[in-house]
Amino acid sequence: MTSSIITGTGSYIPTIKKENEKFLPHRFLNADGTEIPNPNEIIIEKFKSITGIEERRYADNKYNTSDLGYFAAKEAIKDANIDPEELDYIILAHNFGDVKSAAIQSDILPSLATRVKYRLGIKNPNCVAYDILFGCPGWVEGVIQAQAFIKSGIAKKVLVIGAETLSRVLDKHDRDSMIYSDGAGACIVEKVKDNEESSGILSHASQTFTKEEAYFLFFGNSFDKNEHPDVRYIKMHGRKIYEFALNNVPNAMKTALDRSGIDIDDVKKVFIHQANEKMDEAIIKRFFRLYKKPIPEGVMPMSIHKLGNSSVATVPTLLDLVLKGNIEDQEVKKGDVIILASVGAGMNINAIVYRY
Amino acid sequence: MTSSIITGTGSYIPTIKKENEKFLPHRFLNADGTEIPNPNEIIIEKFKSITGIEERRYADNKYNTSDLGYFAAKEAIKDANIDPEELDYIILAHNFGDVKSAAIQSDILPSLATRVKYRLGIKNPNCVAYDILFGCPGWVEGVIQAQAFIKSGIAKKVLVIGAETLSRVLDKHDRDSMIYSDGAGACIVEKVKDNEESSGILSHASQTFTKEEAYFLFFGNSFDKNEHPDVRYIKMHGRKIYEFALNNVPNAMKTALDRSGIDIDDVKKVFIHQANEKMDEAIIKRFFRLYKKPIPEGVMPMSIHKLGNSSVATVPTLLDLVLKGNIEDQEVKKGDVIILASVGAGMNINAIVYRY
Repeated sequence: MTSSIITGTGSYIPTIKKENEKFLPHRFLNADGTEIPNPNEIIIEKFKSITGIEERRYADNKYNTSDLGYFAAKEAIKDANIDPEELDYIILAHNFGDVKSAAIQSDILPSLATRVKYRLGIKNPNCVAYDILFGCPGWVEGVIQAQAFIKSGIAKKVLVIGAETLSRVLDKHDRDSMIYSDGAGACIVEKVKDNEESSGILSHASQTFTKEEAYFLFFGNSFDKNEHPDVRYIKMHGRKIYEFALNNVPNAMKTALDRSGIDIDDVKKVFIHQANEKMDEAIIKRFFRLYKKPIPEGVMPMSIHKLGNSSVATVPTLLDLVLKGNIEDQEVKKGDVIILASVGAGMNINAIVYRY
Repeated sequence: MTSSIITGTGSYIPTIKKENEKFLPHRFLNADGTEIPNPNEIIIEKFKSITGIEERRYADNKYNTSDLGYFAAKEAIKDANIDPEELDYIILAHNFGDVKSAAIQSDILPSLATRVKYRLGIKNPNCVAYDILFGCPGWVEGVIQAQAFIKSGIAKKVLVIGAETLSRVLDKHDRDSMIYSDGAGACIVEKVKDNEESSGILSHASQTFTKEEAYFLFFGNSFDKNEHPDVRYIKMHGRKIYEFALNNVPNAMKTALDRSGIDIDDVKKVFIHQANEKMDEAIIKRFFRLYKKPIPEGVMPMSIHKLGNSSVATVPTLLDLVLKGNIEDQEVKKGDVIILASVGAGMNINAIVYRY
């Protein structure tokens, strides 16, 4: 018996396309500020072979993260065919707030959820709007929180948004900067109607690893040592994250699946955070290996090649694209069991097992 | 029958005392950048007569918001006498992240909850740490979220922290800058044991007003027009907030109280966000007037005179001070019904009715 069901999805894909070759004129540096001997052609080719990323999207200068979130939210509301005045909660996950183009300050006052509510023109004061910061898994965590509000009887309809503009916080001298992109995704989570209790969220798992991992993703200085030390950017220890994710994400997915009582053979799709293609493939391989199964063909839809890693936005965007038939050879049918899974700054991991 | 009970509290009061007279050398300006004709003595005297603030506390340069939160959390854990490894959630409410002294960037990667978990040395990965942004009412909202997790069966022990360093984001040319201070408060919320179901959270109310109110508190430019337009500070439309709070906070408190079924005569204390003494007095007066009652003597403990407005930290700090006998002529006894209430950026309002 489920309590919460996704009744609509939406996403916003920013309009500015940045292809890999546009990084050719960049001056990439090592973490210690020294020059990288390889030419940029080699750096970019290697980057593409690992991450799978060919191009990524950046938001137009005139839009901030909350604008992207608003665009996705509007679409999800339309898709769910609900009156936005009936929403009990708006939960918005992000990592850096609204960062204006060419400025360095994060603007998180008021919360981005408030900004989206304002732009949606919702008058009902009992629609409670707040932001969560939970790294890349923030949107999935927002869905888990929506379920908690529904289960505890304090909400019936919740809008959950993930929105991010990583293009505004990247160090252009860092090769990792090629990973990051902008985007937004959203969904409406509703209380399940009495006769539909076979569909919806079946189970979940959430974790935060801090002992060694707290600062694997962090806000740090440019690799260009001439930059001001008080100006910081998104930074990551990529190799450590890769190993961490491989060791822990499959287990968290298994915990969630085992809690649901669903057989591994019934899992039709895994919508995983689009962090890095090689990493995602390794995670999924290890996940199925935990059940001594090969990876079913087409089980993992991917959007990273064209959209890059837009943090909190990847999972809801990918879900929206597949549900609306916008990814070739990918679909979700009524009754299909899917897994949503994410990993990122915190270091946080989560997974939801869901029946459509 | 309650589900959730506060089993311990803690607070951290920063060490740097800034008395009103220390603002005498400031150059206060109007919003349009023009000079204020009154001398600072008059400005400060008027400020004090409205807000009640005589002095406020600023954090030592070596500490950031997450450090303050850690200090308060450690005390709450000790007070509740729990093993921190048993925590299911750490929820940290703030508004600006970690802002280093003399820097202008907010650092919210990783989340501040992750930083506190790291400093507490908690190894258990199933202790989920996230931040919420909900204006000044963020800590009260965190307690409401803790209750939702407990009611829905996904948590038994939750650490809720409110921490803020407003001294790092204020415009020294703005008279309102004298309101702001730094601080942190925390509590442990636990699932009620079967034989104690008369104590704990009885009811709550939460609201977000955005139609006219979304930007009553916002991130804006200095009143000194020579400052760079991309450097922004906490700014408020004080008069509008005053009227908004007076019109809406008493009603939200009444909604919560009516939901609890408790008689107004049984309310022993109201712990209200320490925003402004005159505003708090007007709110409380109007709240009791809704029940045609006079204000009971001593019903509203205050800390604003010495601690200023530390945003999310005021309510948990005040609660901690009173529970531990650190505010003269104020106490809470077993069985007393209290109200926790807050209002702030969003514009958000919330209230919890609680029996000790």
